[in-house]
Amino acid sequence: MKQKTKRHTDPALAQARREQVLAAAADCFRRKGYHGAGMAEISKTAGMSAGHIYNYFTNKEAIIESIIERDMEEMFSIFQEFEDMPGDLVTILLDGLDHAVERHTDIDQGALNLEMLAEAARNNKVASLLHATDVLARERMRQLLVGERGPLKDIADDELTGRIDVMFAMIGGLLLRKMLNPDLDQQAVLKALRPTMKTLLLPFA
Amino acid sequence: MKQKTKRHTDPALAQARREQVLAAAADCFRRKGYHGAGMAEISKTAGMSAGHIYNYFTNKEAIIESIIERDMEEMFSIFQEFEDMPGDLVTILLDGLDHAVERHTDIDQGALNLEMLAEAARNNKVASLLHATDVLARERMRQLLVGERGPLKDIADDELTGRIDVMFAMIGGLLLRKMLNPDLDQQAVLKALRPTMKTLLLPFA
Repeated sequence: MKQKTKRHTDPALAQARREQVLAAAADCFRRKGYHGAGMAEISKTAGMSAGHIYNYFTNKEAIIESIIERDMEEMFSIFQEFEDMPGDLVTILLDGLDHAVERHTDIDQGALNLEMLAEAARNNKVASLLHATDVLARERMRQLLVGERGPLKDIADDELTGRIDVMFAMIGGLLLRKMLNPDLDQQAVLKALRPTMKTLLLPFA
Repeated sequence: MKQKTKRHTDPALAQARREQVLAAAADCFRRKGYHGAGMAEISKTAGMSAGHIYNYFTNKEAIIESIIERDMEEMFSIFQEFEDMPGDLVTILLDGLDHAVERHTDIDQGALNLEMLAEAARNNKVASLLHATDVLARERMRQLLVGERGPLKDIADDELTGRIDVMFAMIGGLLLRKMLNPDLDQQAVLKALRPTMKTLLLPFA
C-alpha cells in the first residue's frame, strides 16, 4: 500500500502560512493590479514555493475570495460589537464613525479595495463575491436599524433601503476622497460626518 | 529643400479623431485595465494605425491625461450651470442631485474611474493629475458655498473643508454602491440623499 503524501496538519501553522500568502498577494495586487500579478510573483513575495502555495489556494481567484471573506468577517465583527454594546444605538453608531473613518482612509487597504472593484468590472467571479458580501452587509445594517433598539423601526422599506445605500456611499466614498485628496483632514471630516449621519439615522423632519 | 510630412489640419476632423482614440482607449482600459491595455490594442479598437494615433497622443499617459481633462471640463461646466442659475443656491444644488446620481451610477464611466483610481496607486503621473483636478473641484465648490449667494459664508474654514469632503465622499461613493449593488434603487437613494445633503449645505443646528 502506498504511503500518502505527508502534509502539515498543524492548524496554527497552516493558518500562519495562509496569512503569509494573503499578505503577499495583497501587496502584489496593489503594485501590479490583480491582472498583472501572477502566482510566480506572489510566491516570490511570500517567500514560499508556488507548489507550497497551491497546498492552501488552488488559484489566484481562491486567494481573492479569501481576502474578501476576511474583510467580510472583519465587518461582521464590527456589527456584532455594535449589537453587543449597551445603550442608545444612534449614539453607538455615531461614536463608531471615528473607527469607520480610520478604516476607510487606510491607503493600503483602500488601494486593494479599488483594485478588487476595478477587477469586478472584468471578472464575474470577483463581482459575484463582492455583490454577495454587500447583500449581507446591507441586511445586517437593516436588522440593526429596525431591531429592538433600532431608530428606524417605523419607516417604509424602500426608504430604509435608500438610507442604507447613502450611509454606505458616504463611508465607502471616504476611500475615494483619501485617494483623490491625500491631505484629507480626518477631524474636519468627522465633524461634518456626525450630523450628516445623524440625519440618516433618525426619521426625517 | 525637403517637403514637410503632410498633416490633417482640419481642426474638426482632428478633434473627431482624438475623440475616437479616447473612446477606444476608455473601452480598452475598462476591459483590460490601464496596465494591460497597450497602444496596439487601443489602435485596433479605434480602427486606426498606431502611427496615426501618435499624431494625436505621444503615449498612453497622454491619453489618460486627456480623459481626466475631459472629465474636469464636464465637472466645471456643471459648476458653471449652478452659478448661472438664478434663485436660491441650496435649492439649485439639491435639484442638481438627480443629475449627480445619474452621472455617478453610470457603470461604464464608473469602471473607468475605478481603473484610473486603482492606477493612481501605482502611477505617480496619474495620481498627480487626479489630485490636481480634485483641488480645483474642491476650490470651485468652496467658492460656490461661500460666495454671494452661498449658504455657508459664516462657517470656519476647516469646517467647510470637512463638509466638502463629506459631500464629495457621498456623491463619489455612489459609484462604489452601484458596483457593489447593481440593483441600487436610484429613487430611494435620492429620497435619502436630499435631506442628507441639505444637512451639509446649511449651518448645523
